[in-house]
Order: sequence, then structure tokens, then C-alpha cells
Amino acid sequence: MPVPYAKIVSGVPAMTPFVGPETIERRLGATFRLRLGANESSFGISPKAKAVLAAELDRVSWYCDPEHVDLRARLAADLGVGIDNLVVGEGIDGLLGLIVRAFTDPGEAIVTSAGAYPTFNYHVLGYGGRLEFVPYTQDCRNDLEALVEATRRSAAKLLYLANPDNPSGTFLGRAEVEAALDRLPEDCLFVLDEAYAEFAPPEELPPIDAADTRLIRLRTFSKAHGMAGLRLGYAIAAEDVIATFQKIRLHFGVGRLSQVAALASLDDPDFAANVVRQVAEGRADYEALARDHDLAFIPSLTNFVAIDLESAENSLRMVELLEERGVFVRRPGVAPLDRFVRVSVGTPEERAGFAEAFSDALGALRDG
Amino acid sequence: MPVPYAKIVSGVPAMTPFVGPETIERRLGATFRLRLGANESSFGISPKAKAVLAAELDRVSWYCDPEHVDLRARLAADLGVGIDNLVVGEGIDGLLGLIVRAFTDPGEAIVTSAGAYPTFNYHVLGYGGRLEFVPYTQDCRNDLEALVEATRRSAAKLLYLANPDNPSGTFLGRAEVEAALDRLPEDCLFVLDEAYAEFAPPEELPPIDAADTRLIRLRTFSKAHGMAGLRLGYAIAAEDVIATFQKIRLHFGVGRLSQVAALASLDDPDFAANVVRQVAEGRADYEALARDHDLAFIPSLTNFVAIDLESAENSLRMVELLEERGVFVRRPGVAPLDRFVRVSVGTPEERAGFAEAFSDALGALRDG
Repeated sequence: MPVPYAKIVSGVPAMTPFVGPETIERRLGATFRLRLGANESSFGISPKAKAVLAAELDRVSWYCDPEHVDLRARLAADLGVGIDNLVVGEGIDGLLGLIVRAFTDPGEAIVTSAGAYPTFNYHVLGYGGRLEFVPYTQDCRNDLEALVEATRRSAAKLLYLANPDNPSGTFLGRAEVEAALDRLPEDCLFVLDEAYAEFAPPEELPPIDAADTRLIRLRTFSKAHGMAGLRLGYAIAAEDVIATFQKIRLHFGVGRLSQVAALASLDDPDFAANVVRQVAEGRADYEALARDHDLAFIPSLTNFVAIDLESAENSLRMVELLEERGVFVRRPGVAPLDRFVRVSVGTPEERAGFAEAFSDALGALRDG
Repeated sequence: MPVPYAKIVSGVPAMTPFVGPETIERRLGATFRLRLGANESSFGISPKAKAVLAAELDRVSWYCDPEHVDLRARLAADLGVGIDNLVVGEGIDGLLGLIVRAFTDPGEAIVTSAGAYPTFNYHVLGYGGRLEFVPYTQDCRNDLEALVEATRRSAAKLLYLANPDNPSGTFLGRAEVEAALDRLPEDCLFVLDEAYAEFAPPEELPPIDAADTRLIRLRTFSKAHGMAGLRLGYAIAAEDVIATFQKIRLHFGVGRLSQVAALASLDDPDFAANVVRQVAEGRADYEALARDHDLAFIPSLTNFVAIDLESAENSLRMVELLEERGVFVRRPGVAPLDRFVRVSVGTPEERAGFAEAFSDALGALRDG
């Protein structure tokens, strides 16, 4: 007797949205000495957050507040929205699953850039949606005009855009994003993944209008706040949309430590601001490294830089050569981004180590 | 233009599976001095786990291993199953959502006891399933014969049973559970929630046969291991079932700290064993307290005891009287369990405080 899976789930292909560095380490039988492939922060967490976390270990036998009221109230005050415009989830990954579930009927179209965030695609397939892909432009930007056109052509329910973008690092300014929102079909929601928002110019982020039912914005504590391992993100949306998420979300998905750490990090704004400054310095180092080797790179407003290896074959080989040197980076899988390697901004020491390994690997690559 | 929600989600009623103690505290405008309503452990976490957690705070900027290989390998060795028989999730709550999603097509029946775990029901409604309820027996046991009969009558895809049971505390022995499994229709899966397994006699838990495609067993680190705030549970099932969960689960839902803490707690088996002993002593204290007041109670194999207040009106009033005295307990919502209050086993000091508050409240109740 076959196991009686749900129809949608039976049709989902086996896929892994991200192969973690731990998986690669198990394959290699070695630990990376430079972990620069997952856009984790090399600058740790706020010392205030660390102190709060250490104290909260004494209360970790208690469940968390499933309504996340303290954190949502604080975010609401900071963002100038109501507490009912906010939902907290297990990182943006968890929230993307919630969004796809809330809006997608089986077979419906969802639009995204080809080669954009694979976990979004994973959720779309997992809930039986149909992905409509739009290529990046040749200068590695999300093609907003073509994305909007694709939502019309396919009668899509959702348009996904990461801005600043991962894996390219490119950024579309406020005017472009607002124009796209205005041209979106009425019954299509704009899912704006702003995981890297802190690294962009604040005045170029569209102002938050939480009453706008066309838009869901996503933020995270994984990047500038350095809390990737704590799994906490939030969505800003209209009250009706948030109320719908409340009907179906996992109420006890985000742990107790994550909530107190996020609150403490918000109480230490200088910490994240300093991370943003250090990351900008780090991007400049990587840009200089690329120039030194006569390689192009994509100007980035994130915590990583994509360096142009000039062909997909070269970039694939570069990942292997760096692995052999104990360095973890990623290579985007889809053209035109597949000729790049994407390296996260490390500490000055990590950047120096990367520069040495990269130069050495590039020598090996060019020697054939 | 109305927001274009998915059809299933549009039909989901607004519901909150659990009102957390924090929500009650906000309503009361006061903090509970005795938090004994959520079956959290009063005995903390293993000191070894605490030390590992404190050290891991330095790596919390890193994502976790999304495959949880170290933890699954350790659990596999301990349980005598393969690593591919295990999936890790955000507590049993998260895994129940995964299970319902994997097996339920809209409108299909799912069988559970009336008044059993509300979060399971929440997920069933959230994925468009139809709940078929079977009353508890008059002695507050899950009525396995009637539950199996209900799966046949309703052509159910899943049968949910918590054993030891929450909120009653009752336990069905190995022979009864195995007989029910054998009588289940071929295309119905048995979801056996063993959150409180550590508190039951080991020889009365059915041996684990991970090749059995009819059964999914759920365990947690929230109870005996004291890690409710870290949100980590696991499911044991046949490889094909686990492979299906892998296709749709949230890969980065369980945080880095949770994984290292769980591993460390498994390395300290004396800790959990000692918790189980202390909890047994605590249950005996609550039983003595009930007897002192000529009240019945349900013999329990969990970390809580349900005390019989003799009517639903009395138990409701008792919850209020205890709230007024700064004590958080719960009252099950469905007959025959609604005449009980359920109190979690605290430390000896907490039990003494509860005995005093309960006796005082009972005096007020009996005085009318």
C-alpha cells in the first residue's frame, strides 16, 4: 500500500534550496577556514544582545510569547506602523513559506527573477504554485519592467523582488520600485524582500505605508544584526494581510532567545550602524582585489560582492579551487550571474586571507 | 479590490491554539509568580547544555546546519534507527504542521480526541482538513477503539494520539497502542505524539520500528530536557515519509543554539533521568494535596496533574481564583476534562506555593 500523501505534496520534486557549508564540509572531509559563502555577518552580535542572551539561558525552559508582543511593539514604534501591521517568523525563509501558502492556489503563477532567492522558489513549488521566471538584465539587475509585464501575462498572484538583491548585490532605487508597484495588476501582491535593507541608502528605500494592501515587506535580524543562527525575521503589511497570517502561522516557531536578542539589538543601534560601516569598507577591499586582477565586479549594496570570473566554467572552477584552499564562497547558478563568485564581507583578517587564497586560486585558474 | 488569498486560507477561521501566559499577564496587568500552566520544566536545562549554549553565543551569526546531521546521527544511534528515519523541526508544533500538510487534501477527515492538543487541530483547519472528534472516556482516557472506528467511518488520512496524553495525563500501554495500529485502515497514518515519553515506563512504549510506514512518532526536547524556549522536536518515521518531509519542510527553521543544546543534553542522560524522578515526586505532592481536600485527580504519567474540581463551573472559577493569587494553571476546554485544572509539576518550593494558593482559592470557592 503506497503512503497516502496529499496531492500537491506528491507532485513536489525533491530539492534542496541551499546546500549548507556543513554539507560541503562533510563531503570534503575538512572544515572551512574561511566561511564567506552564506552572507553571514563576520561582525558578531551586539554585546548588549549577548549579555541578554546569556542571562536568558536561565529561562530557556519557558516557552516564548507566541504573539511576540514586546518585539512587535518595539518594531512598530521604530517603523511608525501599528503592531497589527507586523508578524514575526523563523527568518525571512519562514515568512516566505507563510506568504506563498496564504496567497497561492495550486497551479497559479508566481513571478521572480531567474536565479533569485532559491528558498522562495522552493516554497512556491512546495505549495503547488507555478514559477514564471524573468531573466536578470545583462548588467545583473532585476528587470522590473519585464517582471511587472510577466505578472500581467501570467495573471500572477505574487511578484517576488529582493532589493538590495541577492545574489547580485544590485539595488533599485525608490522611484523604480514605486513605479513598479503602481503598474502591478490589482490582484497581484508585491513581496519585497529587504533582508539587506540596512546596507542601502535609507532615503532610497520606499517609505513604509502599512495600509498599502499591495505590498509585503520583509526584514531580518540575520544580516546587519548578525543573528542568522537565531532565525528571526518580520513582515510589514496591511492589517488584513497580517490577520490572515495569524490564522495559519506557526505560533511557537520563533524561540525565546531569538526574541530577547532581537529586542536587545534594537536597543543598541550603534552596533548595527557600525557593522554597516565595516561592511562598506570590506566591499571596497573586495573591489580593489578584483581590480588588482583585472576582474570586473558588481557594485553591491549588501554584505557581499560578486566578482566576475568571465565565464561560468571559470567561476565553477574558482569555487573548487577556493574549496581546496579551505574557503567557502558561492556561485550563482543561473546566467548572467553564473560567471560570478559571491563572497561575503569578512573581518579585515578574513578579507586578507581571502585575498591571498583568491589570488593563488586565480593563478592556478589562469595557468589552466 | 479584496486581497486575493488562497482558497483554503480564506476559509480558515481566526483562532489561537494557545493563549500564552504572557497574554494573560498583559490582560491582568501583573506577572504570574507561579507559572505552572504550560507544562514547562521547572528543573531547567542540563548544566552541560547551558555551558555549550554559552560558548555557542560566539557563533550565533552563523546559520545552522539545515540538515541537522550531527543531531540526527546521534538520535539515530540512540534510537537504533537510520538517520533517514528522522526529521528535526521547530518543536512538535512545527512537525504537526508538516505532517498535516504532507497528508491532508482539503476536506479530508482527520481523527483526534475531543479536547486533545489544540495546535494539531489548528493545523488541520489551517490546511483545509476536516476534524472528526471522538470523546474521551469517562475516566479521561483516549478511547482507542472508538478512535480507530472513527478513522474507518470517516476514511480518515491521519489518527492523532498523544500518549502519554495532554491534557489528561493518562497513558495507554504498549499492547493497546499496538492493537490499535493493527486495526487501523491501511491508508490511515497513526501520528503518535510522545512529547511526554520520558515520563512513561520505557517498557510500555511500543518498540520503534522505523520501517513501519503506518506510524509517525514525535518526540521533543521541551519537557524532560527543559528546552521549550529552544523549539526543537523530531519525528521518527519510514524513510519514504521522511524523504517527503524533506521536500517541503522549512530547512532553516530550527536555530543553531537549539541544535547544539539538544546534542549536549543527550550527552548528559543523568540530567533528564533526574528530572523524571523529581517530576514523579512532584506528582505525588499534587496527588496528596488533592486528597487532603477530598478532591479526585487523574493518575498521570506526564509532568502535570489534572485535579478534579467536580464541575466545569468550579474549574473555571478556580482558574480565576488562582490568577488572582498570581498562579498560572490551565483548564481543559472540553468535557469530561473541563471540570479539571491542570497544574505543571514545579520545584518543591513552587509546589509548596501552589498548595498554599490552591488551598486558599478552594476555601474561597467553597465559601461561594
